[in-house]
Amino acid sequence: MREAIQLQLVNQSDPEQSHDSVLTPLSEVSKQRGLIDIANRLDRIRSWLEADLDDLESALESTRQNTSDLGRLAAQHLLEQPGKRIRPLCVFVASRLGRAVAPQVVRDLAVAAELAHAATLLHDDVIDQGAERRGAPTARVVFGNSASVLGGDHLLIEALRRVNRSGEPRLMTRIIDVIGAMVSAEALQLEYRGRFVPEESVYQRVVLGKTSVLFSWALMAGGMAAGLKDLELNALERSGDRLGLAFQLVDDLLDLAGDPAVTGKDSLLDLREGKLTWPLLVACERDASLLPDLQRVAADWSSAEISLPALRNRIVATGCIELTRQRALDAAAEAKSNLSVLQRSAARDALDTVIDAAVERAR
Amino acid sequence: MREAIQLQLVNQSDPEQSHDSVLTPLSEVSKQRGLIDIANRLDRIRSWLEADLDDLESALESTRQNTSDLGRLAAQHLLEQPGKRIRPLCVFVASRLGRAVAPQVVRDLAVAAELAHAATLLHDDVIDQGAERRGAPTARVVFGNSASVLGGDHLLIEALRRVNRSGEPRLMTRIIDVIGAMVSAEALQLEYRGRFVPEESVYQRVVLGKTSVLFSWALMAGGMAAGLKDLELNALERSGDRLGLAFQLVDDLLDLAGDPAVTGKDSLLDLREGKLTWPLLVACERDASLLPDLQRVAADWSSAEISLPALRNRIVATGCIELTRQRALDAAAEAKSNLSVLQRSAARDALDTVIDAAVERAR
Repeated sequence: MREAIQLQLVNQSDPEQSHDSVLTPLSEVSKQRGLIDIANRLDRIRSWLEADLDDLESALESTRQNTSDLGRLAAQHLLEQPGKRIRPLCVFVASRLGRAVAPQVVRDLAVAAELAHAATLLHDDVIDQGAERRGAPTARVVFGNSASVLGGDHLLIEALRRVNRSGEPRLMTRIIDVIGAMVSAEALQLEYRGRFVPEESVYQRVVLGKTSVLFSWALMAGGMAAGLKDLELNALERSGDRLGLAFQLVDDLLDLAGDPAVTGKDSLLDLREGKLTWPLLVACERDASLLPDLQRVAADWSSAEISLPALRNRIVATGCIELTRQRALDAAAEAKSNLSVLQRSAARDALDTVIDAAVERAR
Repeated sequence: MREAIQLQLVNQSDPEQSHDSVLTPLSEVSKQRGLIDIANRLDRIRSWLEADLDDLESALESTRQNTSDLGRLAAQHLLEQPGKRIRPLCVFVASRLGRAVAPQVVRDLAVAAELAHAATLLHDDVIDQGAERRGAPTARVVFGNSASVLGGDHLLIEALRRVNRSGEPRLMTRIIDVIGAMVSAEALQLEYRGRFVPEESVYQRVVLGKTSVLFSWALMAGGMAAGLKDLELNALERSGDRLGLAFQLVDDLLDLAGDPAVTGKDSLLDLREGKLTWPLLVACERDASLLPDLQRVAADWSSAEISLPALRNRIVATGCIELTRQRALDAAAEAKSNLSVLQRSAARDALDTVIDAAVERAR
């Protein structure tokens, strides 16, 4: 009963609670799992960053206007769903690695990271014909594909506007590259749509573009706003690359073994959308008899006449969940070890905590 | 017979001819209409800008790669169709208003203007569910909606990349605003989809965002690359605003009275897509009996059981074509008079010619 109430809170978009949209749920989940150390560390980050996270939600809320613009309505619809906000969190924490900087610049960069992410989600939903996202109907279902295309364009421009006014040309150049890489990765995924091709190189290229590049940018942007040196910025970028991989591996796990009531998306949705995930790649390697069934589900799951729960049991029986979790832990360890060139500080500890929590999250 | 051959040449995408994609057709059309003065002036601009226009086509061609990326394929498909390239032409001509500048910067800005335009076309085709563009099937018909969404994203990023490397922060800020305005105008059009609402204020807002802002940017970008002063840049922007209006009014006319074999799009397509055009707005004002029929066609033309040729005759009978042409000529005159703060020069004369030709074009 208590757990159900907590989950409801997590999935609620209560503005009063919204600055906790990432840290409270992570901390609750950690406590439930007995990870008391991580939970306490998350609680400390929460009080430390309270003003920043409040600012973030106000800034995202301020995109909420009385408007009949269908693109903006689609964008609002997505931003109102409780997201993890982990990319802006990376910006905020990294911005504390150096000397105090203009809070407005940091906030702009944090908001930009979330908006760039949200923009690609809106376009992805059109491309994947996705019906649910963050436990709610997708914007394209509510407002139509056209509104989602325009909503994505709108958020992309709003993200670029904020990076541009930060006045740091390197960040502008990099965010353009990042968005370009995100678009290419989505195109690669589209190319393999409906075909289950368990190739590691394809997986790596998709993860790099879809996830890692924006995490790298977020950490680097925060660090640049804090006046860090190139050596430190490079370390943050490499750390973000590994954090992105760890984050994606956990996403992959949640698709296979997560609780749909918590994750906000159906089980095996990635597979049904024809997306390659790491546990499936591993499962195929260990049990070749899975390949034809995975191919049929990826091609057209509704007519494949394959029981998804039974298929999931066969996948899980390969041990792919443990192997994927281990790989995520390894990537997280690499993400943390990349930070070793940075001086020890509360901010560096907080980054460690964010990395740990990204692997322990349940949604 | 001779005319048919010429039209074929115009619609062909022959790389050897492609630097003439705007000036040769305009010049031919002008000759056919007996506008010998404009034709001769266009021929002079052609030789004057030959290297620039060659550069432009090479740069656009260089986006053509051996790729399986569906987004890039969709983008290539559109760029390979012969376009008018009038926005890059504005950049090139305006760049000659001042002192010689880095040709690479001018070329980047010219290419960016065309790519930003092409990006919105790809997304518009998805939104309008358009089947033909530039006389060929749209990218979304050939490669699918998803590829067109990604193709538009790709071109948008490529446009921004080029503006960014020009190293002029003001141009970056402005192109972000311009693209934002284009997205908002498309959303406004979407909002009125399927309803024919002949309101002048709606028409003006759509034209400003869909057409004028990018023409303004193109002229201003060229002028800025040429080192012009703020006073002159402002004049170029105002001129671009009026040129954009004139250009759109002629587009509106071609939808109603153009030759589909030349324009590359079906007659009354704007109306069937529920888009408000100026001649239709004027026609309704002069013959109120048209309104219910236009509303029915805009709502669902295929089931409206209205003869489009008969409807067109009633529209034309209101005299709206002459009134719209006059308004386009007035806007062109304003565009030219805005240039009066600039010193007389070959470049300023060339801008006058581009403005005249934009009104006289047949596609």
